[in-house]
Amino acid sequence: MRVIEGSAFVAAPLGGMTLAQLGADVIRFDQIGGGLDYRRWPVSATGHSMFWAGMNKGKRSVQIDLRHPEGRELITALITDPGDDGGMFLTNFPATGWLDYERLRLGRADLIMVALSGNYDGTSEVDYTVNPATGFPMVTGPRGQHEPVNSVLPAWDIALGGIAATGLLAADRHRHRTGAGQLVRASLSDVAFSMVANLGRVAQAHTTPDSSVEKDGNFLYGSFGAPFVTKDQRFVMVVGLTPRQWKALESTTGLDRYRTQIERVAGVDLETETGRFNARDHIAQHLRLWFEHRSFDDAAAALDAGGVAWGPYQSFLQLLDDPRLSAANPLFTSVEQPGIGTYPMPGSPLYFSAVDRADTRRAPQLGEHTDEVLSTVLGLDDHELGRLHDRHIIAGPVSHPNALAEP
Amino acid sequence: MRVIEGSAFVAAPLGGMTLAQLGADVIRFDQIGGGLDYRRWPVSATGHSMFWAGMNKGKRSVQIDLRHPEGRELITALITDPGDDGGMFLTNFPATGWLDYERLRLGRADLIMVALSGNYDGTSEVDYTVNPATGFPMVTGPRGQHEPVNSVLPAWDIALGGIAATGLLAADRHRHRTGAGQLVRASLSDVAFSMVANLGRVAQAHTTPDSSVEKDGNFLYGSFGAPFVTKDQRFVMVVGLTPRQWKALESTTGLDRYRTQIERVAGVDLETETGRFNARDHIAQHLRLWFEHRSFDDAAAALDAGGVAWGPYQSFLQLLDDPRLSAANPLFTSVEQPGIGTYPMPGSPLYFSAVDRADTRRAPQLGEHTDEVLSTVLGLDDHELGRLHDRHIIAGPVSHPNALAEP
Repeated sequence: MRVIEGSAFVAAPLGGMTLAQLGADVIRFDQIGGGLDYRRWPVSATGHSMFWAGMNKGKRSVQIDLRHPEGRELITALITDPGDDGGMFLTNFPATGWLDYERLRLGRADLIMVALSGNYDGTSEVDYTVNPATGFPMVTGPRGQHEPVNSVLPAWDIALGGIAATGLLAADRHRHRTGAGQLVRASLSDVAFSMVANLGRVAQAHTTPDSSVEKDGNFLYGSFGAPFVTKDQRFVMVVGLTPRQWKALESTTGLDRYRTQIERVAGVDLETETGRFNARDHIAQHLRLWFEHRSFDDAAAALDAGGVAWGPYQSFLQLLDDPRLSAANPLFTSVEQPGIGTYPMPGSPLYFSAVDRADTRRAPQLGEHTDEVLSTVLGLDDHELGRLHDRHIIAGPVSHPNALAEP
Repeated sequence: MRVIEGSAFVAAPLGGMTLAQLGADVIRFDQIGGGLDYRRWPVSATGHSMFWAGMNKGKRSVQIDLRHPEGRELITALITDPGDDGGMFLTNFPATGWLDYERLRLGRADLIMVALSGNYDGTSEVDYTVNPATGFPMVTGPRGQHEPVNSVLPAWDIALGGIAATGLLAADRHRHRTGAGQLVRASLSDVAFSMVANLGRVAQAHTTPDSSVEKDGNFLYGSFGAPFVTKDQRFVMVVGLTPRQWKALESTTGLDRYRTQIERVAGVDLETETGRFNARDHIAQHLRLWFEHRSFDDAAAALDAGGVAWGPYQSFLQLLDDPRLSAANPLFTSVEQPGIGTYPMPGSPLYFSAVDRADTRRAPQLGEHTDEVLSTVLGLDDHELGRLHDRHIIAGPVSHPNALAEP
């Protein structure tokens, strides 16, 4: 499967990378000098974006002047290149003008195009502006705090990236069976708002508008879960969501000795999720003492031995020492990314028993595959490539982003 | 395509619902009385879970005693039922014992099974315990706050649900071309940690361990974006991430008059993302005055007219009035969900030009399709169904969850 990707930032690049890590030949094209996300933070001392390197692993990269008619012709030729496994275009660029679906499919009638936008009407929007509208920042953070708290994680972009990969595979399935291509559309705010609804929050607001939904610190919603501090000042999260998790938490921490007392004071039945949620402050009060008297290592050992659902809070730096990032987990391999360094790099989180797992591939340098793609896919010869280079319609590998002017 | 789903909570149900909303016949089976997520909050006054209704739209539901050998035989028969479009099983139940892949495929050699787990080694984990380990709660929330801030949104579950749908479609593609089924595995912490890495945070921690990554309030990371309060006390988020967004923000708010001053005081070049990020407090100081002097409506009109990237903060209740949830957007339709009410319900966020968009379908009642599925898919006759009901191996529709004892 070959996918041409015209993209920037998270959702479309992530959708393309998901497919690349499953073995697709994903060719990302960018304006000469790099797209809008080419310098996205975090960046290395040499100006290489660790974000860009993270979002484009396993792809091929071509640099083409997208403002030049001949550049646009080259991209159009890549998108509409014949072949059973080609004819797929994934983009979050405006699907208008030279990138209009009806125009592109003049070159290939069975073209599949997945077009992502900010809103359902095609207007633009980014994760940072959609997230405030979802309602979640209003219920995130400490109790009583008036200000909203944003998500640092671009969760909606990530969800849209997943939807994009699913949509492209569904359209591929349709084409394989019927021969018909199509335009597949999805938008960031549609994905975000549908997810708010999927979690029951739209139904809740609509059917019980008087019920207030307030910030509730780090308590789990609707059952028991809360963070605690150990004697040596480490934060941990413990969860008693399911009956088994609750029983393990009760018996491991000795909370069961206070069960009757808590039930009486809080007027609840702790066997029910609702009861545990309504008594969460009482429960937390007892557990706080348990954690205050134990070091992190002692607490961890006891919680593990008791089968409690819990997890440590970690900084990004501490995450590096998590055993799940170690060589024991085949997800991460130490790979060198030019301009950044050698560090643990993930492959696909999907494991397929019928296919050997591919080695984790780094991101390309911008324009690393310009000549290779144009010669092998479009059949351009050295003379034609030289002419395009001379006229600055295409460009080869960039190894030093700082040498480029910002767009 | 028919998918049998054995699941609870978010990731697996969401993966199944994604496929159901694309037209797949997704049959979710549950223990009689409902699975672990059957009462998940938010719930209606009658005990119906709005969460469960949200995560299972468009599926069929069967209730079977999963502890009884005959119940397990029925499920196994559904999973291994012959037919080109069947033989797909999506689950987050432990893939062991009677649900072991090798055991199940004795009944159908080309079985596709997508098995989700908490960690890559099959051990359990939930979003609430994985999220603290990712590093994000440590950098979320107001500057200087010591305590971590959890995400209220189960973002990693949502990401895993997307990966599950993609993995199933990829395995279907492989089977369609080669005839071979397979076991596809993915885990919550693998998805979470790979996403942390995809965003550049693992590379950053590994290559620049001395660089501190601290809580930074609601500022956008690596460029300019921040929240402001209007004269009438509404919060809005504005973003100047790309050159176009930055120019629009500068000219609309009159910030350009202070450009030279900010650049001199902060010692930066505001044309660069790095410059805007490093001067974010200076920029915010000027913008704060602009918003303090304007009502929300006036600010919104000016920002829209100037083409600024911005968005309002909304509560879940205010989200109901967002035009993107109105009848103008085909994503949402007013649908009745028994036991909860009639409210805006989303269909698939994917739009396919080659396929008519299906009406949005509500969630089933627990066990609503037990008899229908067992008779049409497995060919059981009324006599056999009656016998299974009498022996409490299967059960029909539940309309009043409160009548059931909690598990």
